[in-house]
Amino acid sequence: MTLLFLSTAERGAVWQRVFDAAGEPIVIGEDAVEDRDAITHLLCWNPPADLSRYPNLKAVICAGAGVDHLPPMPEGVVLSRTVAPGIEEMVRDWTVMASLMLHRDMPAYLDQAARGDWQARPTRPARTRRVGIMGTGRIGALVAESLRDLGFPVAGLSRSGRPVAGMDIYAPDRTETFLARSDLLICLLPLTDETRGLMDARFLSCLPQGALLVQAGRGAQLDLDALRAALDSGQVAAAALDVTEPEPLPADHWAWRDPRVIVTPHVAALTNHEEGARHALAVIEATRRGAPVPGGVDPDRGY
Amino acid sequence: MTLLFLSTAERGAVWQRVFDAAGEPIVIGEDAVEDRDAITHLLCWNPPADLSRYPNLKAVICAGAGVDHLPPMPEGVVLSRTVAPGIEEMVRDWTVMASLMLHRDMPAYLDQAARGDWQARPTRPARTRRVGIMGTGRIGALVAESLRDLGFPVAGLSRSGRPVAGMDIYAPDRTETFLARSDLLICLLPLTDETRGLMDARFLSCLPQGALLVQAGRGAQLDLDALRAALDSGQVAAAALDVTEPEPLPADHWAWRDPRVIVTPHVAALTNHEEGARHALAVIEATRRGAPVPGGVDPDRGY
Repeated sequence: MTLLFLSTAERGAVWQRVFDAAGEPIVIGEDAVEDRDAITHLLCWNPPADLSRYPNLKAVICAGAGVDHLPPMPEGVVLSRTVAPGIEEMVRDWTVMASLMLHRDMPAYLDQAARGDWQARPTRPARTRRVGIMGTGRIGALVAESLRDLGFPVAGLSRSGRPVAGMDIYAPDRTETFLARSDLLICLLPLTDETRGLMDARFLSCLPQGALLVQAGRGAQLDLDALRAALDSGQVAAAALDVTEPEPLPADHWAWRDPRVIVTPHVAALTNHEEGARHALAVIEATRRGAPVPGGVDPDRGY
Repeated sequence: MTLLFLSTAERGAVWQRVFDAAGEPIVIGEDAVEDRDAITHLLCWNPPADLSRYPNLKAVICAGAGVDHLPPMPEGVVLSRTVAPGIEEMVRDWTVMASLMLHRDMPAYLDQAARGDWQARPTRPARTRRVGIMGTGRIGALVAESLRDLGFPVAGLSRSGRPVAGMDIYAPDRTETFLARSDLLICLLPLTDETRGLMDARFLSCLPQGALLVQAGRGAQLDLDALRAALDSGQVAAAALDVTEPEPLPADHWAWRDPRVIVTPHVAALTNHEEGARHALAVIEATRRGAPVPGGVDPDRGY
């Protein structure tokens, strides 16, 4: 089995070292491929247009945790997203940070700081700020646990409606009720046909007046024009966005400089190169044993 | 018993309502005092110069949690700091927020955002960022618990050296060892003769190269010129300051606009007016019963 590595040189150097140490063959870049038939695994963010060039391909490993940008896999090829240990905790940390920043008025304090304005603003205890989490999988459960420990009342919106410990769970047919009680709304949803364009003007109008929005899902879920209108009307008081549509956000986009908006460049989850390489080794090992691959994506659900 | 209230009109309106509901007399402002002998309790941030004007004074209640700015009390007068429920949790929340902001490079991302620069920066997992907490009382224990739950290794520096669950505790004679292992140093200390001027150039030079500093203690503990030199040399990579010397920080101070520094205007702990009034009622009630007053300050320790 041989892995074809299609990503940055910086990441490649780390992968080469980890694969060499494990005694697994790795080929860095398509130009270096000598025997296409030998390629069984492919690491990439964007795959080559024609995967049929590698007739013995068994698995495509996406370098990140999100796979919504990838085309359907050919028959017989499984798709694995990188679920490096610690990556869910990283998203949790960013989300908790962003939630606290909005809860404690950091956008306004940062704006004041730019003017050297020392002025305290009224505050409210965490127990009076109702958090609503969209996406109640493993990351959602981690975020819920942290915010609950900090005293926030936490509810979740879940497609399955399955109970999660310590969260009031709302099924999709109660979305409006869920939104109406979410003073601080957190999006952790994967991008699917159902979530694309989800957060539009109508959706945002269901939130309580002055709501806060933390977006750590996917850019295409949030209509930035609708967000701007909601900020201007006061429906939404502030937002923290780690993902946007498009990405990168153009340098002259209004959101960069709006004092009510915090933007970070899609960094809630950054895979450590070494941990990513170890994930790939685990996928190769599972392929060899004929076992389900770690991070395997269900083609029907799309995540 | 009568409370003389010396603070803002906004706060006074809330206190009047809470005291009226409890049937306790309150006088708003010294001009409204008709009978000085009736005054038994005094609410203030800065007390009047001559407390002997109120011969029957039993207790001075400081409107905040810090009392380091107050003169010694006359014989027979106890000093109570406002320990409203939830105030320690508020400091915890600010401190966790500031710690995550530094851990996740928010000063640099905010600086990039001002230029519309979408660029991910290398990151590291929480387990590789060693946190050191100075001040291991109730707030320190809360901060330690939250950061430990987020995966940070946490140690504490404690005057008493008393063990605290889940923290490696260093006594003052091991301060340098404690600092040398603190990638993220958090100050939660009260201002005392021992802590005034504590964080000077020599102190900061004991930290690991590129350390992060969260200051939620008192402004006079940190030499801002020494901090600036440590930032310039790379000894300290970034800092979040809720307290400064002086306060307010002048509008033209370098720290407001330094991209490596986050400044908030002493808002980690803000007492909710209603909860502050209830604390004062509890002090009056304790005085009536001859019991120790809540929030009572030990004149020897100074906090």
